[in-house]
Amino acid sequence: MLKLYYATGTCALATYMTLEEAGADYTAERLSFKDNQQNSPDYLAINPKGRVPALVTDRGVLTETPAMLAYIAQTFPKAKLAPLDDPFDFAQVQSFNSYLCSTAHINHAHKMRGARWATQESSFADMKAMVPKTMAACFSLIEQKMFRGPWVMGDQFTICDPYLHTLSHWLEGDSVDINATPKIADHFKRMSDRPAVRKVMDAQKA
Amino acid sequence: MLKLYYATGTCALATYMTLEEAGADYTAERLSFKDNQQNSPDYLAINPKGRVPALVTDRGVLTETPAMLAYIAQTFPKAKLAPLDDPFDFAQVQSFNSYLCSTAHINHAHKMRGARWATQESSFADMKAMVPKTMAACFSLIEQKMFRGPWVMGDQFTICDPYLHTLSHWLEGDSVDINATPKIADHFKRMSDRPAVRKVMDAQKA
Ligand SMILES: N[C@@H](CCC(=O)N[C@@H](CS)C(=O)NCC(=O)O)C(=O)O
Ligand SMILES: N[C@@H](CCC(=O)N[C@@H](CS)C(=O)NCC(=O)O)C(=O)O
Repeated sequence: MLKLYYATGTCALATYMTLEEAGADYTAERLSFKDNQQNSPDYLAINPKGRVPALVTDRGVLTETPAMLAYIAQTFPKAKLAPLDDPFDFAQVQSFNSYLCSTAHINHAHKMRGARWATQESSFADMKAMVPKTMAACFSLIEQKMFRGPWVMGDQFTICDPYLHTLSHWLEGDSVDINATPKIADHFKRMSDRPAVRKVMDAQKA
Repeated sequence: MLKLYYATGTCALATYMTLEEAGADYTAERLSFKDNQQNSPDYLAINPKGRVPALVTDRGVLTETPAMLAYIAQTFPKAKLAPLDDPFDFAQVQSFNSYLCSTAHINHAHKMRGARWATQESSFADMKAMVPKTMAACFSLIEQKMFRGPWVMGDQFTICDPYLHTLSHWLEGDSVDINATPKIADHFKRMSDRPAVRKVMDAQKA
């Protein structure tokens, strides 16, 4: 059985939602960032990066959201969560997810995690102040150049959708108006209504 | 035919080396960052992100290094550049590449690209000063927890190897001693001797 480590409000919700969409048999264990559980010796033995998500499988532990999402799509092919038989279409899914991981998520991280890349309070304040601008730029690029509609990749719901939805949740706290990107605002509403997404959003708050 | 857009010394070399290792039929076009060609209207029409790499295929353009590397592995299966038939092994390859893309590469980018995330000269200096520490930490984690040897994933050469090699080239400029990670130092030497790698390193300087 699969076991997901996650924390409330984090990127790990993308994997959580995807497991639910896949109909996977899994358990989810919540870590408390307030108590710094991501850096406890027990958890570092599971994921030495000290981050969530981590997915424990019977073959070993997987980390990194894009890798885990593709893994779930490949191991639950009946759920049709990615175009597995077409390398070009699959690459487009992966490209979208890599952009979220390496650009959008990183921009957001500069609000609260400045200490990863700098040491001075003035730098943290400077980084924090720029987040609304960089996140708005990312979402505008997604809206204009990547998002096909009604789902990220067009007619077919894929692993890109829970991942985008997870990051869309961050916009309000990042002082970005989601309505500036109407297709993503509509996607947010439709995603929020999905039973799998509701279940995860309820569970993470419980 | 495939066409790769790259720039000297960038992460795009990973894709360049991988195309060469795959025996692909491709051309490579160099952009000059000095002349800001990555932001020219012509190039933005190809990759609206204004970054390299971009790979033009007969189906459309692909961006994002991890996505492109997996695409090359899947479309040149005879080159055996990834464990394509085992979702777990494939996920580990993807996880390694996602870590390079979203953490190691990002740490390095804080040396010269601070303006992506901040506005003040003092912040840029602060970020720049931390790069030796964050890059050393990444490479130490790779050496101790990820690298199997003799190649990243063990006996089989994969798409992880050109990607790691590309980032290993950055260590000297980032004031990190590669010999602090002896397995990666040895990997660097063996990679440098491969005909595909030599060809790319020569071509990018020519
Ligand atoms: N590249 C990783 C990033 C994982 C990551 O940074 N997770 C954050 C939560 S969104 C975390 O665990 N932060 C805890 C910390 O920095 O201490 C992925 O996409 O899975
Ligand atoms: N996540 C992208 C990042 C691409 C990227 O940032 N490329 C850099 C070179 S290493 C670039 O084009 N920089 C140009 C600029 O920032 O203007 C990938 O892994 O392909």
